[in-house]
Amino acid sequence: MQNSDDGLRPGEVAVAPPDLSDAGVLFIGTIRTPWRSRDECPKRGSSDGSICSIVVDERWRLALTDIAGHRRIQVLYWMHKARRDLVLQTPYRTGLTTGTFALRSPVRPNPIAVSVVDLLAVDGTTLHVRGLDCLDGTPLIDLKPERNHED
Amino acid sequence: MQNSDDGLRPGEVAVAPPDLSDAGVLFIGTIRTPWRSRDECPKRGSSDGSICSIVVDERWRLALTDIAGHRRIQVLYWMHKARRDLVLQTPYRTGLTTGTFALRSPVRPNPIAVSVVDLLAVDGTTLHVRGLDCLDGTPLIDLKPERNHED
Repeated sequence: MQNSDDGLRPGEVAVAPPDLSDAGVLFIGTIRTPWRSRDECPKRGSSDGSICSIVVDERWRLALTDIAGHRRIQVLYWMHKARRDLVLQTPYRTGLTTGTFALRSPVRPNPIAVSVVDLLAVDGTTLHVRGLDCLDGTPLIDLKPERNHED
Repeated sequence: MQNSDDGLRPGEVAVAPPDLSDAGVLFIGTIRTPWRSRDECPKRGSSDGSICSIVVDERWRLALTDIAGHRRIQVLYWMHKARRDLVLQTPYRTGLTTGTFALRSPVRPNPIAVSVVDLLAVDGTTLHVRGLDCLDGTPLIDLKPERNHED
């Protein structure tokens, strides 16, 4: 499918984003994966996928206390390469034009992804995990234990 | 349990946050719930809880296209009342001091919550949902279909 000059596929619509943001996100670490381009990334992380590392900044070291006791961790990260202004998108895979909030595409007003990973090991401020599918160098924004039936 | 003057419980540790944020979040709507204070909020949203409304800003109207076809929606919101500087926390409920990333407390470097809700109805730019547990007036930051086995 041919993109037009503005990078839009047929049916896609962009809106002008507001001039100012409403709150600030802190990058708290970096995700290291084997994937250097979007094409290389698996479509979806899985429990038998590549082992990836989550390197948490030294400032937040104490916040990792007791994380090793959890086997499944929710990881939030910032998809820093994604544009943020599309309200209608036409995914290449389906060719069907759909609203951004009806898709899990990285392109969204706030490019935040939520993944659940298996935590294999904690080595200082580095977590070794399985189940990610993001680009190498992706900024980390949060880690929390997966919700379970007890909480 | 008595809080000290800086609002810290025994065992809690705060760090100085960085001066600048790394990326900007856009508030894309507002969540309306029956709960006006943290004490009133249910501990956890459930499928038989109160019906709440998610009011999406007019700017993003087209992004809701086709969302009504999904029964379960992941909602991301910004917990705007939470402090962001604690690395060790002592939840009142347990009295045990634990790392922030080993807890699902609202207090975290980036106060982003992820909830999965039942989508009951879509009325223009307002979604009626069940399963939230947040304060009335909480800023919305994202909506996406819950991940299913097909994607």
